[in-house]
Amino acid sequence: MEPLPPRKGLSGSGVDRRRDMTARRQAEQLGGGDPQRALAYIEANFESHLADLQGYLKVDNLVTHRERCDEMARRLKEEIERLGGRASVLDYGDMPFVYGRLESGAPRTLVIYRNYDIVPPEGADWSAPPFSGRVRRLEGLGDCVIARGACDPKGPLVGTLRAIEALVRAEGGSPVNLIFLLEGDEQLGSPTLAKVIHDRRKELETAQGALYPKFIQGQGGDPVLPLGVKGMLLLELICSGGAWGGPTRTSIHSGNAAWVASPAWRMVRALATLLDENERVLVNGFYDDVVEIIRPEKEDGGSPEPHVGVIEDQYEYLRSRHVLRFKHDLPPAAICKRYLGQPTFNLANLLIHRSRPWSQFLLPCEVRAQVDIRLVPDQDPEAVVAAIRHHLNDHGFQDIEVITRLAYRPWSIEEDHPLVETARRAYRRSGKEPEVHPSSGTSQPFSLFDEIGLPLVVAGLGRGGRSFHTSEYASIAGIQEFEKWVVRFVHEFAGPGR
Amino acid sequence: MEPLPPRKGLSGSGVDRRRDMTARRQAEQLGGGDPQRALAYIEANFESHLADLQGYLKVDNLVTHRERCDEMARRLKEEIERLGGRASVLDYGDMPFVYGRLESGAPRTLVIYRNYDIVPPEGADWSAPPFSGRVRRLEGLGDCVIARGACDPKGPLVGTLRAIEALVRAEGGSPVNLIFLLEGDEQLGSPTLAKVIHDRRKELETAQGALYPKFIQGQGGDPVLPLGVKGMLLLELICSGGAWGGPTRTSIHSGNAAWVASPAWRMVRALATLLDENERVLVNGFYDDVVEIIRPEKEDGGSPEPHVGVIEDQYEYLRSRHVLRFKHDLPPAAICKRYLGQPTFNLANLLIHRSRPWSQFLLPCEVRAQVDIRLVPDQDPEAVVAAIRHHLNDHGFQDIEVITRLAYRPWSIEEDHPLVETARRAYRRSGKEPEVHPSSGTSQPFSLFDEIGLPLVVAGLGRGGRSFHTSEYASIAGIQEFEKWVVRFVHEFAGPGR
Repeated sequence: MEPLPPRKGLSGSGVDRRRDMTARRQAEQLGGGDPQRALAYIEANFESHLADLQGYLKVDNLVTHRERCDEMARRLKEEIERLGGRASVLDYGDMPFVYGRLESGAPRTLVIYRNYDIVPPEGADWSAPPFSGRVRRLEGLGDCVIARGACDPKGPLVGTLRAIEALVRAEGGSPVNLIFLLEGDEQLGSPTLAKVIHDRRKELETAQGALYPKFIQGQGGDPVLPLGVKGMLLLELICSGGAWGGPTRTSIHSGNAAWVASPAWRMVRALATLLDENERVLVNGFYDDVVEIIRPEKEDGGSPEPHVGVIEDQYEYLRSRHVLRFKHDLPPAAICKRYLGQPTFNLANLLIHRSRPWSQFLLPCEVRAQVDIRLVPDQDPEAVVAAIRHHLNDHGFQDIEVITRLAYRPWSIEEDHPLVETARRAYRRSGKEPEVHPSSGTSQPFSLFDEIGLPLVVAGLGRGGRSFHTSEYASIAGIQEFEKWVVRFVHEFAGPGR
Repeated sequence: MEPLPPRKGLSGSGVDRRRDMTARRQAEQLGGGDPQRALAYIEANFESHLADLQGYLKVDNLVTHRERCDEMARRLKEEIERLGGRASVLDYGDMPFVYGRLESGAPRTLVIYRNYDIVPPEGADWSAPPFSGRVRRLEGLGDCVIARGACDPKGPLVGTLRAIEALVRAEGGSPVNLIFLLEGDEQLGSPTLAKVIHDRRKELETAQGALYPKFIQGQGGDPVLPLGVKGMLLLELICSGGAWGGPTRTSIHSGNAAWVASPAWRMVRALATLLDENERVLVNGFYDDVVEIIRPEKEDGGSPEPHVGVIEDQYEYLRSRHVLRFKHDLPPAAICKRYLGQPTFNLANLLIHRSRPWSQFLLPCEVRAQVDIRLVPDQDPEAVVAAIRHHLNDHGFQDIEVITRLAYRPWSIEEDHPLVETARRAYRRSGKEPEVHPSSGTSQPFSLFDEIGLPLVVAGLGRGGRSFHTSEYASIAGIQEFEKWVVRFVHEFAGPGR
């Protein structure tokens, strides 16, 4: 594999260009082909790295908690500045976004995209308090940090910063320029990211690739290299009283149900037309564009594929703790295949009485359903919304509004893309061979990077799990492996041998 | 009509009996046949009565606001004590209950049953702030007090207290003994009342009747005498993850909707089987025991019956302000008949994520539906619950729990019952002829009084409306008429001519 060519130079003023040239000279003095000093630095300083992560894990910056997210954003901004970069906290009305740049005058630029927000710690049976960052020994994993965010996102986020710190402190600087895109509302569907990418498009287009760092080793010990994520369609369906019946202005006493129809029952009837008893979506055309992303030879239940890696962790966890029966009576491999390749259609909320302290004995004037749909290739968000609109009309629910709250396409990258090869080389230098997966099964707004022609890779080492569950964890040994992997990846990205 | 006989003597200790005899002698000295002094007292003091009501209306003691309900309960306790009675605030865990007794040694005892709790002021377009008690002139009604609770319950509640005050101050005492049952959670379905009646049963059984005071004059000016109310069945349906599928402990990331089924969709499917598109209940046997409570000769749409009185107010209000179309395309009289005579089946809440600050992108482990069913004669709450259970089982939803949160039967009283006659005489002495209605269309736990053999009458004068809507009102002239009516009713209840 050839070294990756630089994609675009920084187009800018004379001042910019002079700064570039100075920085480039510095980078040439650095060398940078040999990551040994940075790797040794990580080993020597790992105890303080771990303590630092634990400090981050103690902040309960839930995605809805503005004040705590402000605190975390400030902290991340200062981190980037301490590394020698520039950073700012952007306020687009949602949670604060941290945008930063660490310029080393290198010919190539890497975007680090990750989030810092966390979801609330669901459940009471945590093996350690969710914001304590305590260490517990887990079978097959050794010592692990237990905390909400340990695996997603703080472990890989802070680990990446520590890896860059090692490059800066031990090697005198990063062999690539870095742009940081750190969002505070990924757990709400990344509503800010599109605006930031739009506003910083010119600078982002100077980068040659983006890394979404992740703890991604499965139970077998091998890392997974996912080549895609699902898209997202967050819809709000609104049924209000109107010409068809129902109260139109305020909720009314439910005694009136004898002569006034209810938007709640109407919404229930409409929703019930959308999915059958096996949760197969009944919207005409919904599955038309769904493309088979798993090769047929890996399909049959007898083969271990794709029942492997991170998918297996998730599968095992659900099976052992939360779920007594999967949706379909199929062999594990076939169920996992559905997880990776099938769209979802989830009813996350049905708000009959919004923000009311009291709602018994009321006939509502308006009912809202929140539906999140995860799209797979080649489903198009707009086509799916149109199909749902047609479905509701066909079933006599012309009055039910469908509002798109969020929409992004599924994303994928070719297996032989140079950036994927870069990640693969970093894995090999870590003694690992990644297992390529057609999708990660979850949704991420990576298609926004596609829109500006920026290739992205989801990669890393390290083991963690239970991201949305109790006792989220990250293996401590894995964190160190992860940091070293990031150092190797950055070097490979700069170009081997440089 | 003969004077009503005393139903039961106070059975008690020698001390009780001696106290009774002393009190009875006092009552005989009072006389009490002529209410003129009390009526004159009301006229002379009405300005302060109105100011007093406005003071009550300024307290925003929402049914969910414990502190304010405590304040209101204390105030009512002190009112009863100021009238010369004994009272206590009972704490059964829900909102405080005020139980009081004003003993005048009379041979007969009347129970005053009413609530003091109010619902939140829905809507922003009030013609005066909902807790200001301001006066506005309304067409056909003259000056009216505008406030949440003006009509339901504070107008009639405070008016009753002022009428009793007039009897005490102007006539030296009430011609009947009075027991006060004032509840603080009627708007939640009166969860405390059954316990209070059970605990005070012995004393309550010494009473000969109960009055539920109400502003009950219709637009035509005639009062309505309803002979029944609907019963209540408040159910919670719970669908949890389990052997059928779904997450079992905590909500999980909605990406798992690809391989894990959802209790939310399951609940939607189950609910959709309960009612058809015309909201006709599909539960086998649900309508079997529904009895025709309106005489056939009053049924046809051409007759003004039962499109009259308070029902007309409600009908007009809904038509003019909130509802563009009634549930059934029928003449007004037939629609009103349904309001009075048909059961309701309302979906008041569907709780997919309880008390969560954040719930997007989650697949729930448990979903709860709150359904309130208003029962008509001769529907039996237990039989209806059993029918719903069978229905869910028959449709494959054996796992969905059905919990009865509240249940009381429909209630009715015979048109020629002596207590109804007493109310009728009080109306006639006020120059009004009441219009007898088979039901009030709403639900009240009056059947609990039936269970201890205590007859009850829903009656009063006065005009008010919009109880659950914006700009709830009570006519000021009507409040005075109401107070005078209560004085007349109490005298009639004591026995005419006494």
